[in-house]
Amino acid sequence: MSASTLNATHDPALRSWIASANVDGADFPIQNLPFTVFSAGTGSASQLRCGVGIGDQILDVGACKDLMTGDELALVAARASRASSLNDLMQLGQPAMSALRQRLSLLLQAGNDDRAALAAALVPQSQAALHLPVRIGGFTDFYASVHHATNVGRLMRPDNPLLPNYKYVPIGYNGRANSVRVSGEPVRRPLGQTKNAGDTSPTYGPSRRLDYEVELGLYIGMPSTRDEPVSVDAAWDHVFGFSLLNDWSARDIQSWEYQPLGPFLSKSFATTISPWVVTAEALAPFRVPAAARAPGDPAPLPHLYSRADRGQGGLQIALDASLRTQRMAQQGVPPLRLSRSNTASLYWTFGQMVAHHTSNGCALDPGDLLGSGTVSGEGEGSQGALLELTVGGSKPLRLESTGEQRSFLEDGDEVIFSGRCERPGFVPIGFGFCAAKILPAIAIPGEPHAG
Amino acid sequence: MSASTLNATHDPALRSWIASANVDGADFPIQNLPFTVFSAGTGSASQLRCGVGIGDQILDVGACKDLMTGDELALVAARASRASSLNDLMQLGQPAMSALRQRLSLLLQAGNDDRAALAAALVPQSQAALHLPVRIGGFTDFYASVHHATNVGRLMRPDNPLLPNYKYVPIGYNGRANSVRVSGEPVRRPLGQTKNAGDTSPTYGPSRRLDYEVELGLYIGMPSTRDEPVSVDAAWDHVFGFSLLNDWSARDIQSWEYQPLGPFLSKSFATTISPWVVTAEALAPFRVPAAARAPGDPAPLPHLYSRADRGQGGLQIALDASLRTQRMAQQGVPPLRLSRSNTASLYWTFGQMVAHHTSNGCALDPGDLLGSGTVSGEGEGSQGALLELTVGGSKPLRLESTGEQRSFLEDGDEVIFSGRCERPGFVPIGFGFCAAKILPAIAIPGEPHAG
Repeated sequence: MSASTLNATHDPALRSWIASANVDGADFPIQNLPFTVFSAGTGSASQLRCGVGIGDQILDVGACKDLMTGDELALVAARASRASSLNDLMQLGQPAMSALRQRLSLLLQAGNDDRAALAAALVPQSQAALHLPVRIGGFTDFYASVHHATNVGRLMRPDNPLLPNYKYVPIGYNGRANSVRVSGEPVRRPLGQTKNAGDTSPTYGPSRRLDYEVELGLYIGMPSTRDEPVSVDAAWDHVFGFSLLNDWSARDIQSWEYQPLGPFLSKSFATTISPWVVTAEALAPFRVPAAARAPGDPAPLPHLYSRADRGQGGLQIALDASLRTQRMAQQGVPPLRLSRSNTASLYWTFGQMVAHHTSNGCALDPGDLLGSGTVSGEGEGSQGALLELTVGGSKPLRLESTGEQRSFLEDGDEVIFSGRCERPGFVPIGFGFCAAKILPAIAIPGEPHAG
Repeated sequence: MSASTLNATHDPALRSWIASANVDGADFPIQNLPFTVFSAGTGSASQLRCGVGIGDQILDVGACKDLMTGDELALVAARASRASSLNDLMQLGQPAMSALRQRLSLLLQAGNDDRAALAAALVPQSQAALHLPVRIGGFTDFYASVHHATNVGRLMRPDNPLLPNYKYVPIGYNGRANSVRVSGEPVRRPLGQTKNAGDTSPTYGPSRRLDYEVELGLYIGMPSTRDEPVSVDAAWDHVFGFSLLNDWSARDIQSWEYQPLGPFLSKSFATTISPWVVTAEALAPFRVPAAARAPGDPAPLPHLYSRADRGQGGLQIALDASLRTQRMAQQGVPPLRLSRSNTASLYWTFGQMVAHHTSNGCALDPGDLLGSGTVSGEGEGSQGALLELTVGGSKPLRLESTGEQRSFLEDGDEVIFSGRCERPGFVPIGFGFCAAKILPAIAIPGEPHAG
């Protein structure tokens, strides 16, 4: 799919007969239609089903199947009926998903005649529970922001922050798929081995440097084939859509464990994703040129380069990270924004990440999740993790509204991400929220609870 | 399960009415009964089914369900019927699996009356295809051999081979689960980015330093619970069994990509496992004391220590790695053994690996695969990878039978692992084979094929 595949679903003049979709600032206007998995009520209604977000409602995709024209579309919709994940839908690929979105868009457009029939398929978001939308087989986390890599590298190697491979290799590692959970589920502070600079040996206990990482997550739809690398240009054929992703990180566990095989327990205790998957098609208007490489930077190797990717391989999505401490919640003051960054600044495009991932013959499967890595910008207030914002914890943030300070996360803190796409001439769309609250660590088995 | 839970299935006097199980040197005597997933013939027989190995036969577990006494056992057997993986069986946990093994052992014992009824449930291994036996959710690879870590570390840091965390942390990383395939499936030489010492920039092409790694793989049966660490002593309750594992590695890709997030594409192109899963119960006679820590080594931290684990947390399994080059195959000479090592020498026990893996709250799921890391011994000829055997490729091996040399693997080479357990007073058991042949790299897309 290229940005030139803008179709009728992007028409800025489109309005929905669902009023909440047309409100200024709505994340889910009719131009978005993000997918999710939801349940509502009791009995058969409590079963998991696939839906799309429209304003403050969810449209039950399976319940619309009789309104679909054409056998193929009805079949597509039927797959969404009573499915506990989006996987069956995702792997159908771009043309089928595009046809489904076009049909759903028609049904939801102002002036549509089927309103009455459709009303029964609508569930208010306030009455639904949202679930992990995808059965994730493989979870890969990249490191695509050069600003993040530089900020983190500077803490360890002030004179030489970026390693020599960074501008050639879209660095990534395998994450732990079963750690991924949906927004709203709390995150328990992990226990782990840590060793302070002065100590002769490590100790096992609750992490004291618990952090978040603002990321964008990409879901693979159409699978790739083992032993067949996917080109940068073909990469988007395999992309179903995107969610917000919080790659929770225990910095003290990480710095002790990560050599020589990379992060492991410092990341595998929890990863939070937002419940809405914004499709690659809905994001087409927000495709932008890939971030320019600095003068003197090497060109990407041929298998990671295409003119089209340089021209429209970037994605313009503003990502906000906010913090609501327990005190803020008690005092009723709003969450405090800690950072705003944009995926348009990533050094590596998602097309390059897919091409790199498959460049050795590794296959990508429907439901595989690829994280961008922390999205940090260059300027002040654009760093997507506390590690960077507080310069390794050395410069705690002062939280103006309550007078509190934070170097790293404390128990009871809630971290909230949001994402928005805006571009002149197009209707803005959003990602909803990716939020979770920190629970205290469990007592160390066999020892009295410390806290 | 402890080594003291030796039961009737281990009785060295037991013989089977299947003659091939009683032959000296048989991998699958009645004391073993390893699980697999197989198909045989056409039509309904081509469906995948769970079986156990006995001599040169496979017993179709589902087909025995009418011979089971007790509702629960019949239910267990029914789960194995027409199942495309062992996962449903595995998660039943140790007591159910033990009951099933005891019953299967009775059915297969010399003198059993049900022979005629059972004969229909037997399929010769020579007429069956063996499949990936487990639906693997998470694949973790450890680094538990201190000899391997030292040999590899010495190539990079001659004066200081072991990193400071090694004797405290059972180092591991997340592998790529969908790279795992069953013995017999070929492995294609991966493409990737590599950079020679003298080069100013990397190039993309076929790996020139393709290697194998001899490992033992552990399958999780009973799941653990998120946010609840599993103790070293409870670890074996979650262990279903073990297979041989080849963690294929492209050393040139690895050395260029691995900093700072660890190995990624250098490993994710292929992992081979043997089709037979030898149960933790069958291995009980071969539980031995954990390898002694060297004088001056730190004691394991309390959460990684138990007296029982030190006393019987080791596993005595001899692992052989052999090579059959294309020339050997053509000349009809047997494969050449390159190494023999033993899992009893591992620095970290499997109990410690499970405890460490869950120590941050990470859950283990049925079907998760945990690799030991390369099993290398201290002496000459016990190094479980070519990287070590050839000292980073600097001392090529001379293959006596054909006069060939090898620094790393060449196209057409077949790597064959086997594993055997022997201990006085017990009937030896084996693991079968883990074998695969190297196929040439594909042509780089867009370029003419190099060779």
